[in-house]
Parts: sequence; C-alpha cells; structure tokens
Amino acid sequence: MSRPRVTKIINCRVLLDHKIVHNAYLWFQDGIIIDPQQHFYDARFEPDEVIDAHGRLVVPGFIDAQINGAFGVDFTTDAQPEVSDETLRENLAKVSKGLLKFGCTAYCPTVVSAEPEIYHRVLPMLRPQPGSVHGAAILGAHIEGPFISHGKRGAHRPHVLSAAPNGIEDLYERYGEELKERSKTQEGQERAVKIITVAPELEGILDVIPELVDKGVIVSIGHSEAKIADAEAGVAQGATFITHLFNAMLAFHHRDPGIIGTLGSTHLPIPSKGQGHPSPSATSPDATQPDPRPFYGLICDGIHAHPNSIKVAYYSHPKGCVLVTDALSAAGLPPGTYPLAGREISVDDSLHAYIKDTTTLAGSVITMDACIRNFVAFTKCTLVEAIEAATLHPAQLLGIVDRKGSLNVGRDADLVFIDDSNGPDQFVVERVFVGGEEVVF
Amino acid sequence: MSRPRVTKIINCRVLLDHKIVHNAYLWFQDGIIIDPQQHFYDARFEPDEVIDAHGRLVVPGFIDAQINGAFGVDFTTDAQPEVSDETLRENLAKVSKGLLKFGCTAYCPTVVSAEPEIYHRVLPMLRPQPGSVHGAAILGAHIEGPFISHGKRGAHRPHVLSAAPNGIEDLYERYGEELKERSKTQEGQERAVKIITVAPELEGILDVIPELVDKGVIVSIGHSEAKIADAEAGVAQGATFITHLFNAMLAFHHRDPGIIGTLGSTHLPIPSKGQGHPSPSATSPDATQPDPRPFYGLICDGIHAHPNSIKVAYYSHPKGCVLVTDALSAAGLPPGTYPLAGREISVDDSLHAYIKDTTTLAGSVITMDACIRNFVAFTKCTLVEAIEAATLHPAQLLGIVDRKGSLNVGRDADLVFIDDSNGPDQFVVERVFVGGEEVVF
Repeated sequence: MSRPRVTKIINCRVLLDHKIVHNAYLWFQDGIIIDPQQHFYDARFEPDEVIDAHGRLVVPGFIDAQINGAFGVDFTTDAQPEVSDETLRENLAKVSKGLLKFGCTAYCPTVVSAEPEIYHRVLPMLRPQPGSVHGAAILGAHIEGPFISHGKRGAHRPHVLSAAPNGIEDLYERYGEELKERSKTQEGQERAVKIITVAPELEGILDVIPELVDKGVIVSIGHSEAKIADAEAGVAQGATFITHLFNAMLAFHHRDPGIIGTLGSTHLPIPSKGQGHPSPSATSPDATQPDPRPFYGLICDGIHAHPNSIKVAYYSHPKGCVLVTDALSAAGLPPGTYPLAGREISVDDSLHAYIKDTTTLAGSVITMDACIRNFVAFTKCTLVEAIEAATLHPAQLLGIVDRKGSLNVGRDADLVFIDDSNGPDQFVVERVFVGGEEVVF
Repeated sequence: MSRPRVTKIINCRVLLDHKIVHNAYLWFQDGIIIDPQQHFYDARFEPDEVIDAHGRLVVPGFIDAQINGAFGVDFTTDAQPEVSDETLRENLAKVSKGLLKFGCTAYCPTVVSAEPEIYHRVLPMLRPQPGSVHGAAILGAHIEGPFISHGKRGAHRPHVLSAAPNGIEDLYERYGEELKERSKTQEGQERAVKIITVAPELEGILDVIPELVDKGVIVSIGHSEAKIADAEAGVAQGATFITHLFNAMLAFHHRDPGIIGTLGSTHLPIPSKGQGHPSPSATSPDATQPDPRPFYGLICDGIHAHPNSIKVAYYSHPKGCVLVTDALSAAGLPPGTYPLAGREISVDDSLHAYIKDTTTLAGSVITMDACIRNFVAFTKCTLVEAIEAATLHPAQLLGIVDRKGSLNVGRDADLVFIDDSNGPDQFVVERVFVGGEEVVF
C-alpha cells in the first residue's frame, strides 16, 4: 500500500476539548491527527507504529506570538546590511531549532522598530514556513513598531519612530512589499506580515487599523500612551491583541485604566464572527457571543509584572490570555551583554534584561515552558488553562485553529509530552513531535 | 393563642442560595424568616396575614458597611461638643429612617479621622441597635482613621492623623472605652466599634491588627500607601477588608500592585475557619478552603473608579466584593456645599463631591440601590451576584450571616421588593420590610 504510515500513541493522557482525557490514544498520519474510526473501516486496523507515552500528558505544541530572538540571535540586528542572507537564514534556523526543546513548535519572529531598509530586507525572510524536526514553524512576522509612542518606546530607538499622517501609505513605505502586496509570492509563499503592534493614539493609526485587518493583518495595541478611550477606539476599529499587557503602556489607574482597562470593557461592538476573537466566558459582555475584548500577551517571567498582577488580569478575561516570551537574543544564554536592534542589552544574574546602563526592561530571557509553569504558580489556574494560553489562544488570535493550537482531528501533529508528576507548576517537557515526527535532542 | 402572627408572602420570586427561586413563598413570624413545615405540623396551617408580591423579586435588605452620613447629617460633624446629644440622636435617626427607602436596612455609621474627644463623645451613640420601620439597623461604627497615611488621607484633616508607636494603647487613648472595654454595657448594649480602617505601613499598626481581631473588631486596610508586601502582611495579621478599593491608596502598578494587588494574592495563610472570610471561588488560591484574600469595598458611582476598573476587580475576586456608598451628608440632597468632619464639601451638578476648591474626592452622594444598578451595568454580572455584593458579602464580612444578608430560615425578615421588569440594571425598590414589618413611605 502506498498510504502514509499511521502512528498511534498509547498509554497517554491527552489535552482535548478543555479537559485532560485519561487512558487515551492519539493517532496521526502524514503529520496530521486523525480519527482512525473515520479512516479505517476494519475494526482490527493496526497502526504502523506504536509509541508508548508511559502515562505522560500530551499537549499541543506551544505557540509564541512574540519573540525577538534567542540563543544569541536578534532578528532585527540580523537585518542589518552587513549580515549576509546566508547568515540570516542560518540564525533563523538556529532559533527555530533551539525553541523545540522548550516545547515551542511555532512562532512569530518579532522585529522591533527600524528603518525602512531593515524591513525591506528582513521581512521576506520571515514568511511563514512549516515546522519540522529541524525547527519550529514560522507563522509570519510580528512587527512591533515603528508606529508607536515615544513616551512608551521601551528599548526601541527613538529616531526611527513615526506616526502615520498619510495613513496606510506610510506603512507601505516603511514595511515595503510584504505588507502592500498580500497575494502569495510566485513561489507560493504567504506574505510575512502577521501582526503589527501600533499605538492607536498616534496620528493616522485609528484609520489604518481596519485597512490592515482587511489585508489579513492582526493589529495589536502596544508601546502606547493610549487612555481607555483611545484603546477602546482601537479595538472597535479592529485591533484584537494587546502587546505584552502592563509593559510599555500607561499603568492601570482606576479612573482611567488605559489599555489594561480593555480587559474590563463592556460596550465594545460584538464581532460578527468568532474567528480571531476570544471565546466567550463568564466575564464576557455577552456570554453567548464571541468576546469583543482583545487577546492580551503576558510575559510571565515574574519580572515584567508582579505575580498578583498576572492573576488579576487573567481572571478578568481568562479566554483572552496569550502567553508570550518576548525573548531576546540572550534567551538560552548566560548573563552578559547582547544585541537588540543596534542597542546593547545587559542581562544580570537575576535574569533582568535592561537596556545597558539603564533600568528600562528590554524583553525577557524566559522560555515558553517556564512561562507556563510560572503562570500556573501565579494564578493557581489549572494546567489545562495554562497550556491553552500558550496553544489554543494564540492559535485563535492568529486565525490558525484549523491547523494548530489543539489536538483535534485534522490538526498538525505538533505534540509535547509533559511529565507533570511533580505538580502542574513543575512540569517538564520530555518529548516533542513536529508534524508527527519526533525531535531528537 | 398567644403565638406571634405568621405572615406569608405569595406570588414572588425569592433570592435564595445564590439563585432566584420562581413561584416561591416566604414565611416569617416575629420578625424572623421561618419554615412553616418545621413549625406547624398541621398541613392546612393558614398564615395570619398574606402579602401578594405581584411577582416582584424579594431580596434581603441591603447592608452598607461605610457611610459617613446623608440627608444633611455628617456623623463626625455631629460629634462636635456644640451639638447636643438630642440633636445627635435625632440626626442619626434621620439617616436610619432615610436609608430605608433605598432598600438599605442595616449600616455602619462611619466616623472619619478626629480628635480623641470626638470619638469619646460619638462612639457610645453608635452602638448596635436593631432596625425597625422607623430606621435601618445600626451594626456598630466604622472608624476610618486616624491611624492612616498622610499621603493618602483624602478628605481627612492632617493634624489629627497618627501612627501607633505605643501599640494598642495609642488606639485606646484615641477611641476610648468603646474599644478598650469590649464586654456589653450595663444596659446590655454591644460596644460600638465594628470596623477600623488603618494603614498597615504605619509604625505599630501591624502588631495592633491581631489584638483588634481578638477583640472582635474587623480590621480594614485603607487610606494607605501600602505596597503589596505591606498589604499582604496586614492581611496575614488578620485584616479582612479593604476600604473603598482604588481610592486613597497607591494606584495599581503592575510591578507592585499595592493594596489592590491583594485581589490577586495566592500565598496568604488559609483562614482556620470560614467565618468572616469570603467564600471560596474559582479564583481562590485553594477553592476547597475559605478565601484568605480580604473583602473589598467598592464605590460604584462611576466617579470614584472607571466602570472597567470595577469589572477587572470584581472578576479577579468575585466573592470578596462588598458594595459601599461612602455617602456624605450631601447624599439625598441637591448640589451645594455640605460638611464633612469640619471641612466643606462641594457637590457639583454631575454629583462629584470634592473638598471645596480642590479636586480631591471626598466620598459619594450615591444610594445603595443605585450602586447595585451601576454594578450590574459596569460588570454585566447577574442581578443575584450584584445583590449578594450588597447583602451576603457584607454580612459575611461583619460576621452576622446568622441574622442578616440572606433569606434563609432564621434570618431577620429584612426584605426588599424589587421591580426588575426593565432589566437588572434598571430595577426599582418598591417595598421594604424591616423585621417583618412594612415601611410606610
């Protein structure tokens, strides 16, 4: 027979439909999860391969919607003209490969604010590509800036920031063809731009948001001095994400809770379709409709936000939570000095990453598995809820639930075997599969 | 027969055990809710009186744990030596009577920071007294200050504030016999001091908290510059309430969320008994135990905190929410200038109450029924949840669930008939009963 091999995982627990199913099996074929009863009418059908999970918990591969680099690589720095295309590709592959052992099987490489030539150079390299045992899937680029606030620029260089007085044309000029031309390339590749982080209070930005959404771009609010009215206006225009909630925005003030206050919004327009929006929850304005509030990224390293702040945010809008690492080139490396978009970042022994000689946080050095463990510890949520914040929710945000983010039939067999015998906040990633093939570490 | 009259309410909906029971009856006798099947073995037993509720929703009387005065009366101003005892009693009765038509059947008159002689004078007048059709029950005094922070004193006069370097002795000196002597008076009255609001970061206060708790006083954290560590220390010492969350405290900062951050605490000591603590919820550190986090007061007037802030707080700790009015003497009166503890408060047309010629908020002019309506509108919670935040939760905080806060058998027949036919955030208080007797308006 010429049919592709069929694999069956036995002796496992599986995260499925918001629950952990015990004494479960998982079948996949050709990199896709299958239901054998739908495929094979012979009840005695035998798989070509059986994998004994030894009772481990099997969960979907983690998805990181914001990561600047890792293992010494910084995607923005790599875009400088003096870096060869070959080196850039090698570095990207290095990150893709390195993320796998932490359970991350898909990600959005993130480029911070830069000059036009940087985007024109690097974006075509960041087009979506499937994952394999050699590296996590690339889901397209998260472009953070330069249409962001000077007052909340964080580690972004001030002279490259901009407003958009000429509307979308200013974005085309800055980002180039990868935004302007959205049909696939001649080689059949999708275009690179997946998420753009903007400050809605800047001139021109509010009007640009629906145009970006129409082009299939996910608009995120961040690095912004938006008041609650600005933030809700941005969401009403189509923004569906908040870039690293709490950081690089006005602090939550009770009389004007700013961007953070959108987690408590009740009067946003209900989305006409659920795709791309959080599932309804008990805290939704209308629990029978898609939640109009945005998803929000959380950096759960215990540094960017206090554990209690994470908990307060989470329970106010549980289905919107998306764990991100916002990892820097220093991630996975010892303390020291590392690059970020032409700046130097100092990482100290307690793993705080500051712009050198300042106290401005520049990102994290955390990995996604550690984010999930911290999230359980900080919120006391279930492991299922925490895993979904790193799998299902980012897949919903990115509009790829038909392929990733769950272990339902038809999804990519991107699997993480977890040993949670020491408790949900102490789990360890043991084995990782991408597209049904096991990664050898 | 000499037994007291038995009343049966028919044709009503009743809030019971966290649900609205339809087609229900409610029986009471001698001011207490009864189960007729437990009392009368004759199945054909007929009540002495039948009240047709015409389908209205019957809920417990509202409980206000923080109210400075109303209808022109300010409890602290009334304590001045030039006010006669008779006037003070008349004014107190005026407030007690006036609150009834808003559904408030029990309250803690609140005295703001003052000199020792003020407390010595006024506290004996604020001892608990039962409610009647002539006025809401007094549950004892809420003493707000003077052991509070200069930096967060709000409308409190600075020169009367104090720390407690000599521990509880400083409190005895300031408040007098009503705190020091906790056994009942010769006349059998309970002592006046029910709640004391303190700033835990002040010298001596942390050590005083357990002594106050031992004396049966509820300790609340407020008017304070406490960081999260100070606030959690205060809770670990025995504080069970936060005075008007958000107001007169450090704003929530994500890296140190201060007092507000205790809503997201996960590592507080679990209380040995549930009494006086919030019920467990899905957001509790341990959903099988009493919640160690404090109750928190919310002023839902749309002025003291943004609606979205109210929502974020509520869902992070739903069982801890206690609606309070923090009403001023101006409550129930037109815009103008009114007294608060020797200061002048200006109330403008939009019902903002500021210390005259400043922008410092001094309290509200809202009534409890309006607080509940706003709370529904701000959070989109159910009417049951909102009513419980004004009935069950304050009763739990105050340790009086055996008497008030629900319509279970054995509780006082303090009843509010609500017309909610225009929606849960538009309900109207129609009829009010105190101790089983209907109030005539």
